[in-house]
Amino acid sequence: MHRTVLLTTLAAAAFAARAAEAPALMPLPLKMEAGAGALAIDAKFTAVATPADARLENALNRLVARLSRQTGMAIARGKPAGGRATLRVECKTRGALNPTLGEDESYQLQVTPDGALLKAATVDGALRGIETFVQLVVPGTGGFEAPAVTIDDRPRFPWRGFMLDVSRHWMPVELVKRNLDAMAAVKLNVFHWHLSDDQGFRVESRRYPRLQQFGSAGHYYTQAEIREVVAYARDRGIRVVPEFDMPGHTTAWFPAYPRLASGPGPFEIGGDFGIFNQVMDPSREETYIFLDGFIGEMATLFPDPYFHVGGDEVNGRAWAQSAHVQAFAKLHHLKDTRHIQLYFSKRIHQILARHGKTMVGWDEILQPGLGASTVIQTWRGRASLAESVKQGYRGILSWGYYLDHLQPASYHYGIDPLGGDTAELTAAQASHILGGEACMWNELASAETVDSRIWPRLAAIAERFWSAGDVTDAASMYRRLEAVSRMLEWTGIQHRANYGPMLDRLSGNHFAPPVRVLADACEALGLGPRRVNHNTTETPLNRMVDAARPESESVRALELAAARVAADPPADAIDTAVLRSQFSRWVANDREFQPLADANPLLEELKPISKDLSTVGVLGLQLLDLVTSGQTAPADWLAAQQGELNRMLEPNADLRLAAVRPVKILLDRAARAAK
Amino acid sequence: MHRTVLLTTLAAAAFAARAAEAPALMPLPLKMEAGAGALAIDAKFTAVATPADARLENALNRLVARLSRQTGMAIARGKPAGGRATLRVECKTRGALNPTLGEDESYQLQVTPDGALLKAATVDGALRGIETFVQLVVPGTGGFEAPAVTIDDRPRFPWRGFMLDVSRHWMPVELVKRNLDAMAAVKLNVFHWHLSDDQGFRVESRRYPRLQQFGSAGHYYTQAEIREVVAYARDRGIRVVPEFDMPGHTTAWFPAYPRLASGPGPFEIGGDFGIFNQVMDPSREETYIFLDGFIGEMATLFPDPYFHVGGDEVNGRAWAQSAHVQAFAKLHHLKDTRHIQLYFSKRIHQILARHGKTMVGWDEILQPGLGASTVIQTWRGRASLAESVKQGYRGILSWGYYLDHLQPASYHYGIDPLGGDTAELTAAQASHILGGEACMWNELASAETVDSRIWPRLAAIAERFWSAGDVTDAASMYRRLEAVSRMLEWTGIQHRANYGPMLDRLSGNHFAPPVRVLADACEALGLGPRRVNHNTTETPLNRMVDAARPESESVRALELAAARVAADPPADAIDTAVLRSQFSRWVANDREFQPLADANPLLEELKPISKDLSTVGVLGLQLLDLVTSGQTAPADWLAAQQGELNRMLEPNADLRLAAVRPVKILLDRAARAAK
Repeated sequence: MHRTVLLTTLAAAAFAARAAEAPALMPLPLKMEAGAGALAIDAKFTAVATPADARLENALNRLVARLSRQTGMAIARGKPAGGRATLRVECKTRGALNPTLGEDESYQLQVTPDGALLKAATVDGALRGIETFVQLVVPGTGGFEAPAVTIDDRPRFPWRGFMLDVSRHWMPVELVKRNLDAMAAVKLNVFHWHLSDDQGFRVESRRYPRLQQFGSAGHYYTQAEIREVVAYARDRGIRVVPEFDMPGHTTAWFPAYPRLASGPGPFEIGGDFGIFNQVMDPSREETYIFLDGFIGEMATLFPDPYFHVGGDEVNGRAWAQSAHVQAFAKLHHLKDTRHIQLYFSKRIHQILARHGKTMVGWDEILQPGLGASTVIQTWRGRASLAESVKQGYRGILSWGYYLDHLQPASYHYGIDPLGGDTAELTAAQASHILGGEACMWNELASAETVDSRIWPRLAAIAERFWSAGDVTDAASMYRRLEAVSRMLEWTGIQHRANYGPMLDRLSGNHFAPPVRVLADACEALGLGPRRVNHNTTETPLNRMVDAARPESESVRALELAAARVAADPPADAIDTAVLRSQFSRWVANDREFQPLADANPLLEELKPISKDLSTVGVLGLQLLDLVTSGQTAPADWLAAQQGELNRMLEPNADLRLAAVRPVKILLDRAARAAK
Repeated sequence: MHRTVLLTTLAAAAFAARAAEAPALMPLPLKMEAGAGALAIDAKFTAVATPADARLENALNRLVARLSRQTGMAIARGKPAGGRATLRVECKTRGALNPTLGEDESYQLQVTPDGALLKAATVDGALRGIETFVQLVVPGTGGFEAPAVTIDDRPRFPWRGFMLDVSRHWMPVELVKRNLDAMAAVKLNVFHWHLSDDQGFRVESRRYPRLQQFGSAGHYYTQAEIREVVAYARDRGIRVVPEFDMPGHTTAWFPAYPRLASGPGPFEIGGDFGIFNQVMDPSREETYIFLDGFIGEMATLFPDPYFHVGGDEVNGRAWAQSAHVQAFAKLHHLKDTRHIQLYFSKRIHQILARHGKTMVGWDEILQPGLGASTVIQTWRGRASLAESVKQGYRGILSWGYYLDHLQPASYHYGIDPLGGDTAELTAAQASHILGGEACMWNELASAETVDSRIWPRLAAIAERFWSAGDVTDAASMYRRLEAVSRMLEWTGIQHRANYGPMLDRLSGNHFAPPVRVLADACEALGLGPRRVNHNTTETPLNRMVDAARPESESVRALELAAARVAADPPADAIDTAVLRSQFSRWVANDREFQPLADANPLLEELKPISKDLSTVGVLGLQLLDLVTSGQTAPADWLAAQQGELNRMLEPNADLRLAAVRPVKILLDRAARAAK
């Protein structure tokens, strides 16, 4: 018989490297104890809750729908015919009508082969526990089942947020909703809605309708839609905090109301990105009268007591160029840009207070005298967060959680709101740190791509905000994330859905394996290395960098395999076989890729990185032979290869050639052996 | 350097075997002539239409949105600033307000590097032409573009339908809508909505609200939703023909109105499938009074003049057992079941006529005296269709177009409404054949799986109904279908979306390559070989057979490769390499698959077919060596292998091991060589 070769792909490597970690819960609960046996989940599943409560009832309806999707079984929402329900939910009280900062979100969940009992102090707590229950359900030896377990859980931080920029690229209501569903699945509880920026004003104002008429190019949420989203979020235990960024990032307000600006018009909605010079005029009383009217209207539309007014990135140029702003500054002894902005912030703080709202703003609003309830959202670093709480304010951390930078999940996971500069705070000061918020700025993401830029990495950040501070094992996080990422698909989130279609588009509606192999080996670069200043809101987001994932699940698996091969003693032969076959695939890929790219401008830019991938494959095979044979290589050859790998790690077509990493592990091993 | 092996997968085979066929239009136009150059499609794309018409305007809005999705470019719907629009649409007249049987759907489309001009007699014609234009757009050498071309096109048949059963499994409104979008993309123009059956009554009746209250388990369309769908279809040039099946398949009516039934109750909605004994009582005048009221209400809800009243599969048992039906039959000289049903049909025909509706029914209603306008929909064969038109009625063919049987696209494609028994008709008789309808019965499909059971195969049937009768090259159809299937995704249809998630579910939210390899090598069996009588509406549709596709795109590519290897002279080495690597993958797959299946009841049933796949792989490698080396094998060995392959083609876990087919091609080649 013909020799049989074990053929595998990157995907196979991902599989081979997977270590079972069940149940794949994320965030990890505070306390969890495994029991004996499992609770069967079948079409007869029922759930009941006390006390009678609309939110709880909706949650159980959603639970049943989700179990149906997750298991492919048609489970009807019914009451138990007799006997006990499969899942009983008992809340001590309903808790607050709206999700509220500081609400008791604790719950206890006990699953036995006879049934599941979920106890919570409030409905919000029950909502969290229901999500844990859903995550427990997997195909077991006797069909779908939830393993017997006792869980006692509560969050570490009360403010666990996600910010979505809907200005730079328009994000439709259904996209917002599916992200709320996914947020709820990982127990996030604040949706920070970045509703205005230079590139678009996204809310219907009835008092100032010109705002959306001239500031949105037709893409804005009606007030009915806002109410719908707020109710949708409330049902899932999520607060909605609106942000209207001011006095900077306000270009989209000016076509409608040029008098709000510090300088002369004409104005149009921003098409490119960055820090714009034009900002609101802090010197005219009309500005505050207008904002009082606007904030008053929005205060009734958004029920949450917290209201975000931005405050970031004012460069002061418009103020410096304006004679009347300068005159005003002199009169009020405002010695520089910073002090003018502090004056503006204080006025806004007063307006918010008059409308019953607590102010939230970015670092730049920080100054004494804003009222102790003010919340500072820090994007500049933990030193700034520490400074905020030292001044007596409360703070939330967003530095380190910028999803649009497209860092690996482990990077975000490693950043603790109570680590670094904040680790030195007193307990009292630390208690002012409410939690954190992940941010998704959308200069370079569209409705088609944004889900894949948020998920699954946001689940890892959600764990950072919810789970105990000592839950820091990134390897465990990744093992669970693999399963949770797939479970999230059943909530309706589209983070995995567009990868294939976008790659097929790149090759003209055909499936082209060389394009897929290259995409699997690459990672998309985010804001920062991918320069926004080559882009406008009109730039097509249909390149490989838009399809490629921020973090390659399969390359990560190859890294694990490489690490095992490089270990002492080396791992079993399967790892070597997996690496060899994958490296070989990379070697062969370029000669299939180049002819495709010759006739296709969407692939043209990828020619060099495709060539690099084959080079990486060749080196990978050489190093694999070296390492597994125990031979050593000349130091100068090793140094040359090191240089070559470093070169190939440089950005290329806005991509990172992730494939370099497993090969680098082997090279480091060979270099150690040569010493 | 280490030897480099060309590693590939099934998917790579699909790619290697792909022959470019551009533009990938489906249905193929009547006349098409390629021009020189191409029209660039970029963010500055504009379109204008005359005369001013709401449906046209909506169509252009959708066109722009679809081009945005298809290209990943943010194209705004704008008027040309100056100069000509990229696409100009000119309609001679608006045509009928509602899509109408026999409307002129012809169009002429001319694309040059300077612009595109679409001329049509009516708005419906323009809608068809716009879909052709969208299909032309591909990434070309200079960016996205439509190749220069002159097209003159019109349909062969005026009735090009798709029937969706929403009774056996509930199909939500958004699913109906996305199927309407995909239908429009391939120029289908009739949506036949099978709204009632034994397992559910799916429309809100205000006159008889008990129908939905007791007959739908809460899953029905409100009248507002019906109107919404009808308007949605109208916008896309699609007529909506409702079907209320009677007097059989009416179990869902009886819990609400037991007096409609021929026999005594109690009644409940059907949970299992098949032909139920209980049917409407044709002997009581009250039945007709009720149906007159009901049809009168529905006649205003559905504007199309055609109204489908089913009439299929009445076995007569309930009538035989009913003393009063028997007495009635005797009185009216109705000698058997068939004649009792004919009496019922005539009465229904009168009711429909009173409400201004033309009757459509299945074969079984056929009899003289129904009025020449009656349309017979044939599910039993073309002899029945010929008989219908010979009796002076009009007919549409559905035999051969049952999508739920999960036959390959080429099977449906090979069946012509004017072929077989209808080929002998006179021209006048043939003109009574209006076209055809593909049917999707949903005993074994759920909202999760149904799109993948309809698409892309329905596109091939749509071509049969639209394109000239001599367009019969299945190889060309398949080459275009590969691209069209992917283009359809941009309409929002989900036929490719759930494959990955469902396979991941089978392995417990993990990506398991052995499961994927097996799934790619298998095809789902449809109604017929997959027995419905083991199933109820509650049966989980989460098995491999539900995830697997009706037709394996990648196995088809391997068949093409095998045919080239088996040809004389043999093809180039790439085909051999592709086959060898894929066969090797199959050989290795089973030993990875079995441990997964040990602990997972969803995979348990697949153990034998997984074993067979490896056996197929082994034989494939042996045969490849034989064929490429030019050696011959003993006849008894060949015969034994033939028997083994035939055994492995037998249904297994409701799957067909498609992987057998390419190996069978090699075996046949080896057998020829041995002679």
